[in-house]
Amino acid sequence: MNKEQFLRAFMTEVWNEQQFDKVAFYVHHAYTIHLDTADPWEGQTLSHEAFKERLRFSFNSFPDMHFDITSAIEEENHVAITWILTGTNSGKIGGFPPTNRAIKTTGLTIYHFTNQKISGHTQVFDRLKVAQQLGFLSN
Amino acid sequence: MNKEQFLRAFMTEVWNEQQFDKVAFYVHHAYTIHLDTADPWEGQTLSHEAFKERLRFSFNSFPDMHFDITSAIEEENHVAITWILTGTNSGKIGGFPPTNRAIKTTGLTIYHFTNQKISGHTQVFDRLKVAQQLGFLSN
Repeated sequence: MNKEQFLRAFMTEVWNEQQFDKVAFYVHHAYTIHLDTADPWEGQTLSHEAFKERLRFSFNSFPDMHFDITSAIEEENHVAITWILTGTNSGKIGGFPPTNRAIKTTGLTIYHFTNQKISGHTQVFDRLKVAQQLGFLSN
Repeated sequence: MNKEQFLRAFMTEVWNEQQFDKVAFYVHHAYTIHLDTADPWEGQTLSHEAFKERLRFSFNSFPDMHFDITSAIEEENHVAITWILTGTNSGKIGGFPPTNRAIKTTGLTIYHFTNQKISGHTQVFDRLKVAQQLGFLSN
């Protein structure tokens, strides 16, 4: 399994299927969020337990969230993907009550690898679109 | 001009048209290369003069290099783009003589902004494809 296949399996099993017990298989014991604006853990290095807490935080807000990978590029120690995220905001986001609105947005993530495990990411996505879809901003 | 338009103009004028005199307009006085595997300046923070030296280094190897932007995503302080790079290796790369072969590859760059200027990047591209196209590796 090359790094792109490994990353695709991680996105399917951990993010789309919410298999928490697969975190230790895919994720390095030290996972650093290099850039991910407005992510509460941006700049931090997460243990497996903290990584699972971050998953719970995301799934609480968008229980049906789903990533479709639209392209992938593999380098020696990185795999970059572009994606479409869909989901329904049926749980709280921070202190805000659920809007029950659907979102669909595009983004791009560079995943970093260390010793064949995923050890961090650098990410940008269209947050303005999400804010508009949730009704936080006018269109 | 929003950040995406600014970035697109930078890619056209500075990279595709090789207008060195536009560097000061687009580029922050401290430009950091956060991630760009095999870039000689990876991890460094460049002045305008060092940025121009890096341009010269690239244009020496691929005088006709051209970026086509295939998608763009804007955040508050970042613009991410996917691109297709084409060019002909008609100059030296490091100590290697020109191969005179054409390359075409895909990549993805997150550009970082500080005070309305471009202050760095984080990049991944398909370097394996380039190595194959230049004949450094078998297909």
